[in-house]
Order: sequence, then structure tokens, then C-alpha cells
Amino acid sequence: MEKFVIKNIKRPEKNIVEEYKRLDVSTVYEAQGKKGLINHEIQPVQNNSFICGPAVTAVCYAGDNLMIHAAIEVCQPGDILVVTTIGESTSGMIGELIVMALQKRGVKGLIIDSGIRDVARIRELGFPVWSKAISSEGTTKNRGGAVNAAAICGGCLIEPGDLILADDDGVVNVKKKDLETTLELSKKRMQKEEMTKEKINNGELSLDFYGLREMLEKENVVYYDSYQEQVK
Amino acid sequence: MEKFVIKNIKRPEKNIVEEYKRLDVSTVYEAQGKKGLINHEIQPVQNNSFICGPAVTAVCYAGDNLMIHAAIEVCQPGDILVVTTIGESTSGMIGELIVMALQKRGVKGLIIDSGIRDVARIRELGFPVWSKAISSEGTTKNRGGAVNAAAICGGCLIEPGDLILADDDGVVNVKKKDLETTLELSKKRMQKEEMTKEKINNGELSLDFYGLREMLEKENVVYYDSYQEQVK
Amino acid sequence: MEKFVIKNIKRPEKNIVEEYKRLDVSTVYEAQGKKGLINHEIQPVQNNSFICGPAVTAVCYAGDNLMIHAAIEVCQPGDILVVTTIGESTSGMIGELIVMALQKRGVKGLIIDSGIRDVARIRELGFPVWSKAISSEGTTKNRGGAVNAAAICGGCLIEPGDLILADDDGVVNVKKKDLETTLELSKKRMQKEEMTKEKINNGELSLDFYGLREMLEKENVVYYDSYQEQVK
Amino acid sequence: MEKFVIKNIKRPEKNIVEEYKRLDVSTVYEAQGKKGLINHEIQPVQNNSFICGPAVTAVCYAGDNLMIHAAIEVCQPGDILVVTTIGESTSGMIGELIVMALQKRGVKGLIIDSGIRDVARIRELGFPVWSKAISSEGTTKNRGGAVNAAAICGGCLIEPGDLILADDDGVVNVKKKDLETTLELSKKRMQKEEMTKEKINNGELSLDFYGLREMLEKENVVYYDSYQEQVK
Amino acid sequence: MEKFVIKNIKRPEKNIVEEYKRLDVSTVYEAQGKKGLINHEIQPVQNNSFICGPAVTAVCYAGDNLMIHAAIEVCQPGDILVVTTIGESTSGMIGELIVMALQKRGVKGLIIDSGIRDVARIRELGFPVWSKAISSEGTTKNRGGAVNAAAICGGCLIEPGDLILADDDGVVNVKKKDLETTLELSKKRMQKEEMTKEKINNGELSLDFYGLREMLEKENVVYYDSYQEQVK
Amino acid sequence: MEKFVIKNIKRPEKNIVEEYKRLDVSTVYEAQGKKGLINHEIQPVQNNSFICGPAVTAVCYAGDNLMIHAAIEVCQPGDILVVTTIGESTSGMIGELIVMALQKRGVKGLIIDSGIRDVARIRELGFPVWSKAISSEGTTKNRGGAVNAAAICGGCLIEPGDLILADDDGVVNVKKKDLETTLELSKKRMQKEEMTKEKINNGELSLDFYGLREMLEKENVVYYDSYQEQVK
Repeated sequence: MEKFVIKNIKRPEKNIVEEYKRLDVSTVYEAQGKKGLINHEIQPVQNNSFICGPAVTAVCYAGDNLMIHAAIEVCQPGDILVVTTIGESTSGMIGELIVMALQKRGVKGLIIDSGIRDVARIRELGFPVWSKAISSEGTTKNRGGAVNAAAICGGCLIEPGDLILADDDGVVNVKKKDLETTLELSKKRMQKEEMTKEKINNGELSLDFYGLREMLEKENVVYYDSYQEQVK
Repeated sequence: MEKFVIKNIKRPEKNIVEEYKRLDVSTVYEAQGKKGLINHEIQPVQNNSFICGPAVTAVCYAGDNLMIHAAIEVCQPGDILVVTTIGESTSGMIGELIVMALQKRGVKGLIIDSGIRDVARIRELGFPVWSKAISSEGTTKNRGGAVNAAAICGGCLIEPGDLILADDDGVVNVKKKDLETTLELSKKRMQKEEMTKEKINNGELSLDFYGLREMLEKENVVYYDSYQEQVK
Repeated sequence: MEKFVIKNIKRPEKNIVEEYKRLDVSTVYEAQGKKGLINHEIQPVQNNSFICGPAVTAVCYAGDNLMIHAAIEVCQPGDILVVTTIGESTSGMIGELIVMALQKRGVKGLIIDSGIRDVARIRELGFPVWSKAISSEGTTKNRGGAVNAAAICGGCLIEPGDLILADDDGVVNVKKKDLETTLELSKKRMQKEEMTKEKINNGELSLDFYGLREMLEKENVVYYDSYQEQVK
Repeated sequence: MEKFVIKNIKRPEKNIVEEYKRLDVSTVYEAQGKKGLINHEIQPVQNNSFICGPAVTAVCYAGDNLMIHAAIEVCQPGDILVVTTIGESTSGMIGELIVMALQKRGVKGLIIDSGIRDVARIRELGFPVWSKAISSEGTTKNRGGAVNAAAICGGCLIEPGDLILADDDGVVNVKKKDLETTLELSKKRMQKEEMTKEKINNGELSLDFYGLREMLEKENVVYYDSYQEQVK
Repeated sequence: MEKFVIKNIKRPEKNIVEEYKRLDVSTVYEAQGKKGLINHEIQPVQNNSFICGPAVTAVCYAGDNLMIHAAIEVCQPGDILVVTTIGESTSGMIGELIVMALQKRGVKGLIIDSGIRDVARIRELGFPVWSKAISSEGTTKNRGGAVNAAAICGGCLIEPGDLILADDDGVVNVKKKDLETTLELSKKRMQKEEMTKEKINNGELSLDFYGLREMLEKENVVYYDSYQEQVK
Repeated sequence: MEKFVIKNIKRPEKNIVEEYKRLDVSTVYEAQGKKGLINHEIQPVQNNSFICGPAVTAVCYAGDNLMIHAAIEVCQPGDILVVTTIGESTSGMIGELIVMALQKRGVKGLIIDSGIRDVARIRELGFPVWSKAISSEGTTKNRGGAVNAAAICGGCLIEPGDLILADDDGVVNVKKKDLETTLELSKKRMQKEEMTKEKINNGELSLDFYGLREMLEKENVVYYDSYQEQVK
């Protein structure tokens, strides 16, 4: 494969990133038409974390983390590091030292299609991680790959500078060109959800406010008072 | 499949449900002859929860949650919603809004042979869930299924009105006809366990109070003082 | 298989165990040449635990825990019980009662290539466990196996008296004959890591202090200022 | 659990079974409304087999095959034996000897939610099997269960006397009460498929004969001549 | 997501495709620097097949195959259809009818990141398929997606017109821009392998002709005549 | 880890190996007390193969096959190569060239706790393999490990010179010290099975010739003529 490091990438505007920080993964994923979701086998290693920022990508050979070291240098405050491997891997490619270095650079979190280690210490440092495994299994540092290449992470194409959101539900990716539309649709979705919550608090039923009774009828769902009635 | 909603089901007596609330999953499962256990791939999404109540069941097509909306209406305070799918699914079929609606109806918890989303918010709401996955992957609301049909959840047959217990160990189901016998046997088991705990606290060994030394002898297990003695 | 209980095993010196208590799993695993690691499918059932002590092993038939009862008697304060099965198993072979008995004997923790149950209660008791599953599925107590046989746990050979370390990253095993060398190498590794942390805190880059820029060059990794430059 | 053997079950009429023999699993599954399908983790251990007949069920404890021996006696020519376990299992519960005994009784095949062994010999004997695993891991013969109880196999409820079809695609179950309707709908489906095949052979496109062009339009799918046109 | 069909794509030159037909998956994967490999969970459903041709891609919603119908129309003789889903899927999205339609268009094979059904019939038709599952579970035909979008299949980015090779080892993808270089390197690799085979047939050892004895020495691998010598 | 090659190992007597060639995996596994079985995730890559011979072991780092090259040299006619990795692996560590070299040395087959590639060609060469995966993913040849160390393969301890049997059911290992006893017990088991087959051919039931009717009675299994009788 081509081996390179791209030092500067186009990141989303600061203010649009700020706006996304009021959203969550499921909302954004739905708003942009159920796309951009990373497979749920990549899971948070802590609860109650939320991160949002531009992706810097590192593509490593399975079993080697050289390109993560190269990626640290090009990260900027607010970035999220997205690591994938060529060949499947669950090794612990990142530990306490790399996390400290990432924090020093102002990186906000890590999405990795492999494993991490020193997980207790990483939780203490308050650095949020979404990974596929926790494993002490170590790596070498001697194989070239790419930093800021287009990368497939958890079955999803991440391009450098894409916006990443991650929370307890998982990870979603927003393409640069979709940033504005998706933001608009997400906000509308949240507003609508606020109104729905009010209805629910008032004791209204979704069967009514979503108009689902007609759907049940259209689908020929029959209502019975009791089991006895159904079988007679 | 037949598409229907059964509005009223026969639930266990309140007082018998209260008695079960003093038990736990492993005890009940053992007491009724090691049956009624839901596969352990359906796991709690929070720690330290315990729920106990009658099952209302929703059988949905994979990728669609219309029948969960229909189920909300027939739930009563104290119920536990049990959701299964036709076709395997790990989609997030239930999120914050449905959980709010279930809580409004007094539902005590959810067992789902699929995924959920908005999990951070659901934990905040204090609504206990046992599920197979956490995933933002959404669903449609347009395919008919059944509410209060007999349902297979985690490899276990759940009939509406069965008693469900769930804790950190998993989920167990008690058939209506077994409620009294299983309760009696569970209580006896707990009493016996209390006595066993006392013995353990007194430093007695299970080899002695369970009479296992004979079993070891019957199985021809030989005792050696040390490795040297064994190999000589 | 041979069926036996070896009552006395050779344990590491107390003071060497104490020294290991200042280390962690990933460090020890790396220090001894990336060996001794138990597969990461055996995971901690609690966060923030660390145990370190000599292994007492119990080899049971899948679905039976007779030999765990036999193992309790030969455990000594500070020991770690390592349980494996003949035939794959995820049953809950150990619950509250056995944990109480182990604590009474001064056992520090459990590594089990199968499942456990009563997990909420076990967490309350503060007894650390690394297991493959949480499951109420119970066992019999009537099949002979071995206590203090060489045992394969999570794909790793554990011999009685080996030193076990377990933390949030997983479990590592140190052979008796390697205890001193591995300790020495682990300490050196930790010292080196302390120095590395200082460098990171000073803002130095691993590319520089590990000399990785040459490696990148050797691997023909090209630097571009931007994507535009790369594709032109 | 209740422990029993039901000696006589109501089987489908011979002639209706004969009619089903002209169908296949996917057709029947679709015709009865996408229900009755056994999870695809239960797979054929040979290619090009098709069986069709009434289910005799055996419910065993994981690790024990006593009830399979009891089931042999109640099987009749043309039957299909369906085996499930209480507790998950991949042990080899059935081998050459039991297969010979089943063939002697005229049993047509085996569906098992566990493993089998002697698989080379079983293939030689021409006895078709759908199982979850191939494993030498053996069983005991000393725990009571049930023959001809309702059984959950591969996530599907099988009642004794239900009609089972199995081919290279998997296994489907038809409830006794649905036998006539499903047969009628399956035949119609096959006739329709024959007509569709003719259209395909004539070079017609499914977009046209299924009327899917409108669906694409309704879904706002846009046609471009080329990539250049799309991005401009 | 964007919903579109791109009717015409740029395919590799016929003669270069012909040259690739003399290669195999492992060779091409190695020759292009260990990239382009589709995860091995996508497996051949038959033995001894080899296909090689340009990719036409169909991106469907999980549980719906509308876009496969749209893809048929734009396929040309020699093409390979590559199907992926938005949301994970193991449903049987393709069966006998679609395969017949694909064969009518001259399509050479199918790579699908989901399941297929009618597998016995598809094998009879001699149409090679690489899939993730065999399952009767059916799909709808009413959700828009894309034909000839860039698609992630088995963790690998496939762009329309890329060259696909598939054999018993799996599936590899060659980017249009790499076609010539990879071909050249593959041929060299095969020539070198021919020479290596000759050496092996002459009884030469890879330790010698690859110069690995020095590597063993560099790695401090010690030779002992026997176990006795090693432990003394 | 220690890095070494042991050139000469103690192999079982030729005539005892010949006697084992009349047995099969399930018989030997049972005869030696249900031990020595390799996990069934290591599966045959062809049908109808049987191999039997002494183990030569190669322990490699995941992603590297240097020690397989070293192992070739120490293999003798009739040997079986057993390959395991430090760190989990599914890479294709062995392909056509290594298989040719192994055949040249007279090696009878391969058991590998990782993947292989060139599988079509390996089948053509008639070289039987049991592996965990088929994958083109390649390896390096530059990391030292061990040849003829004790190795854990598929969860089972294999020592060099142990006898390996492998067939369609899986792989079993016999320790040198158990060779005679296990052979004796295996033969008895086969004789007994021959007699059992005769009984089955005569129409006798296992319930009778194994005396299982008493077991059913002891287990309180009740016989009913029909479902009606059971529920009344």
C-alpha cells in the first residue's frame, strides 16, 4: 500500500463542531439517513463519555503501531484519533504512554478497530476510548502505513477531517459535505423528540400521536380482549 | 404469522410476586429443576438491578418495532416487557422515548432479544434493561406482529403472564402453573444456603458438610502430599 | 485422566510476591518476552482490581465442580484459584457460597475458564474474579478431576505455584523458574516508562525519543503537507 | 422440569407429507409468512440432502443423551428426530451407533441443537443431519428429560408431530394447524416462480415484471449515466 | 444516504482481465503489498471456483434487496456483483431467481456481505458465490440505496470497476490505478514461486534458499540435539 | 520466551502407530477418559481424511512463520506438524510451498491453531490439514520461536513425540506414557461397539441392552400413551 503522512487536513469549522456537541450518536445517525454508523463491536471502555471532533486517521499493519506514533505529531487540540489495521487485530496497540502523548496534544478521544491496554490507567486519565478489545498483547514499531489516509474503521469509511461523535451508544461519522444538512436535520429531530417527550409525560400513547393505529389496521393486526377470545 | 394483540392476560397474584422479590435468578432457576433460564448472551446493561413481575410479550419483525408501540398500551404497573424478533436482530429497537412511555405505564423493566439505544439516558432514567446489544441502528414502524403471543426469548419460551426475574446473573422465567411449587422450593433452598453460610463462617469445609469426600473416593481421586510423591 | 489432589505445592517466596505487587499485567507480559498471557476472552467481572499470588489449580469436567470443593481445602492465604474444564464450558461453576469459602481460606481471587454466578453478591464481597461468562447455569458435584495438576487456562499453561497477576487488562502467568529474571526486567521496564512519561510531559515526541523517524524513512513513508500535494 | 415420554403423537397425513416433499425450505418459510425458520447456526453436515417428515422431539440435559435412547423407541418410519438441550451444548451427543438405530427405525434425519460425532461414518450411512457442531466430546446417559415435549430448537418452537423440512438452506417447521394453508400458499409461490423463471429466460428484467421502477422512483433513486454526471 | 444508480462505469481493459485470470487471490494480495483483502468471514459456498472481473456494486439496506434488482440491469457480461448492506445482515438476499437473472446478463459471480438462499440450486447452476451466511431469511424490495457507489464489503473498500478476484482462499480487490503494477508484481511473484517449487522438488530447504539460518541466529534461536541436552 | 530447536525427539514405536491407524478420534478420546481433545474450532479443510503419527511442534509468534521453516528440517517421514502461535492468529501461515516441502519430508498432515492459504492447491496435493481459518493474510519470516517445545494447540497440551490422530471429527492427542493403555482400551471399546452394532442390526434397543430403562425409572421419567393422557 502507499505509505504516507499527510500533515495538514481540512477540519470542520470550530462553531459547527460546537453545535454538534449538543447532539448524540443515535440522533445524528438517524438524521443523516441511517448512515455513518461504526459496527457495534467497537464499544466504549468507559460509561458516560461523549466526544465530538475531527478525525485524524492512522492505518497500521496488524501487530504494529508505528503509524500511531507518526499520527501524534499531526494531531491538533480537539481532534479524535481513529486507528484501523490492515489485517484483523485485537492486540493492545495503545497504552498509557500513547494516551498521555495524545492528551498532551489536546486529542479528545480514540476510536480503534483493535485493542488497547493499561485500561485502568486510561480510565483514570479520563481519556475516552472506543475499542474492539482489551488485551495486553503488544505490538512492534517498525512497519510503515499511513496517517490521514481514508480508513475503514468498524466497517465504515472515515476520511480525515470527517466529524466523529461517540457516546455510550457507539460511534458515528459525518462526512464534511454533509455537516450542515445533518446538523439541521438533527436539530429538527431533537426538537420533535422534545415535543414527543411532552406528549409521553402527558400520558399520550405513541399509537395515537404517531398514527400507528392505522398501520396496525393496514397490517391486519386483530385485537382480542383475552386469550380465550382469540382461540375460540 | 398470526397478527394480533391480546389486551388482557392472566397475571400472577400480587402477593406471590411480592414473595418472589426476596429471591434471585440463580436460586429460582435451580429450585425449579434448572429450567426457565434465558441464554446468557442477553445481559444486563447496568449493574445491581433486580426486577420481578409478569411478562407482557411483543413479537416484532427484525428491524421493526411497531408491536412495541402496541404493547405499551396493554402494559400495567409492575409488568415486565419481553421483546423478541422474527429473524435475528441486534438493532436498537428501543430508546429513550419508549422507555419513558414504559415508565409512565409503570413497567418495571425490559428483556429484549435484540439491541437498545440511548443507553446512557436509559441508565439515568433508572430503567433496568437486559439486552443482546447496544446499537444506534434504527427500526421502522410498519410491520405487524403480535402482542401477548407465546414468544421465544433467548432460547426460552415465555408465555404472557409468566413471572420474570432478572438480576446481574441473567433472566429466569417461571410458568404460571409452577409458581407455588417453585416458590416453596426456592425458599427451602435459601434457608439451606443460610445454614451453609453459617457452616462456612465457622470454617467447616464443603467436602465435609456435603459429604464429598466419599464422592472423591468413589471417583478414585488419589491424595498425594506433594508432586514428588505423585510421580515417584 | 489421572484423578488426584496434590496437597502441598512449592510457592514463590513471600518477598518476591510482594515485589510483583508493584507491577501490572502488561508490564510483566512484555518483560518476559510477550509470553504467559491468558486469552482476553477471560475478562474481569469488576473494574479496578489487582491480584497477585501463587496459583492453585482445579481441573474439572465441564458441568461439574467437585474438584473446586476439593481445592478449597488445599488453598492457603494469598493463593489464587485457577479453574479450567475438560470440555468447553460457560456454566456458572462458582457462586456466593464457594467464594465465601475461598475468602475464609484467605484466597485472593479467582481465574476461571468457564462462568460464575451470584455475581452481584461476589462483587459486594469484594472478591475479584476473571471469567469467561456470567451464567446461572448450574453444575453437579460428582465427577473426579484434579487439584494442582498442570492446567490449560485461556490457552495458557498454568502449573501449580506459578505466579499469577491479574488486573483490568487481563491475566498473566509467570513460571517459577522465570520469577527473578522477569522481576528484574519488569522493574527496568517500569523505570524506563517513568523516564518516558517525563519526556512526554515535557512535550517530546515518541518519533524523536524512540528514534522512529528513521524507521519511517526506512519504510519509505512519504510526508505531504496536504492531500492536494499527495495527489498531484 | 417434568420428565416424561409420550409414546404416541399425532402425525400429519401421509399424503400431505408427500406433497411437501416437492417443496423446499425457503419456499415454505416464505409461504407461511416468514415464520418457522430455525437459526442458521444449525447447518447441514452434508450437501444436497432434503428431508421432510413429522418431528419426534427429545429434550436432554446438556452433556447427557439418555432421552435420545428413549426417543428411538417411539420413532416410526418417516419421522425426523429433533434434539435440543437444557443448557447450551456443542457436545457430540449422537454418533454412528445411534444413527444406525435411528435408521433401523426408519427415521429419515436428525435436527440437533448441539453437536454430533462419527461424522464421516454418518455421511457414509447416508443419514442426513443438521447440527450446530461436530465434536468428539462425549456425553453421559443418566439424566432424565423428555421425549415429545414441546422443544425449542435453534430459537424455534417445535411441537411433536409438526412437519419438518430441511435442505441445504436450513430447517423450517410447519405447525399442524397450518399444514393445509401453507401447502396451498407454497404451491402458488412455486407456480409463480416458474412463470418468473420463464420471464427471466426471455430476458425480461425484474425491475419491469415486479414493477420495481416505480418503487425506485418513489424512493427517490436518481439515475446517472456516469460518475462524472453524478458529481457535477 | 444518497440514492442513485450509475449506469455506466469504467471497466478494466479486457486483455488485462484475461491476464489476471492466470493468477490467484493470495498471489495478488501479496503482490500489491498485502492490501485489498476481504475479511475471511466472507467464504465461498462451493469449492474449486475462480472468478475474475470488474465489480458492479449494490448497496442495500439490511433486509431489503431492491437495489440488487436495479443492479442487474447495469451489469454486463464478465462483471462480478458485489453486494453490501447498510446495517449488518445475514439474511438470504439472493436466491435462485436473481442468480438466473445475473447469469442471463453474463455475470460471472457474486460477493455478498450478507447471506444467500436456494444454495443447492445455485451450486447446480454453477454460479460461484462468496457470502457470509446461508439463510432462508427473506427480504423486502422497497428501500432505495445505491448501485455503483463506493461500497465497503467485508471491511474492504470496493469502487465500481475495481477488479475482483475470488477463489477458495477468499476475495481480493485491485484498484483501477494499481492494475498494471500489481499485475507485473504478481507475475514476478509467480515466476519466483515456480523456481522455489523446483528447489523444493530437488530437496532444498527454505532455511537455505531463503537464507533463514542467519535470521534464526540473529534471533538467538539455539539448536539442541535432544530434550536432554536442552534441560541439562 | 526461550528460543530453540530440538532436533531429535522420541517418537512412538512404529508398530504401535500402525495399530492406532485402525482407530478413530472419538474412540481414542473416549478410551483415554475423555481427554486429549483439541477444540472443535480447529476443523478439517477436507472431508474423509485420517492421519496418525508423532507430533513435531512449531511455536511461532502470531503473524510470523519463521519457525515453520525451521521445523521442516527436523521432520521425519510419518510425522504430523503441529503449529501454534503466541498471540491469537487466523493468518494464512502455511501455503502451497510449505506443504510441498512438508510432503517432500514425508510429513503426513498438519494441525494448525491459525489459518492456511492456497487451500484449493493443498487439497489437490492431497495433504490433509486441520486449521482454524482459511485466509490469504500473509506472514513475515523474522521472529524466533521454538521447534519441539511443549505447545498448546486448540486448548490442548501437545508435547513433541505425542501421538496425534485426526479425522472428520477433529483431533486427539495421546501422551507417550498413555500409548499402551489407551490402545488397549480403544480396542476393547471398538470390539464392544461391534457387538452393539450387531444388536442394533437385530433390532434390539439401547434402552434394553444398555439397561437404560432402570435409569429412566430412577430419574422418575413417566411414560404416557399420548399427550391427552399427560395433561389430564
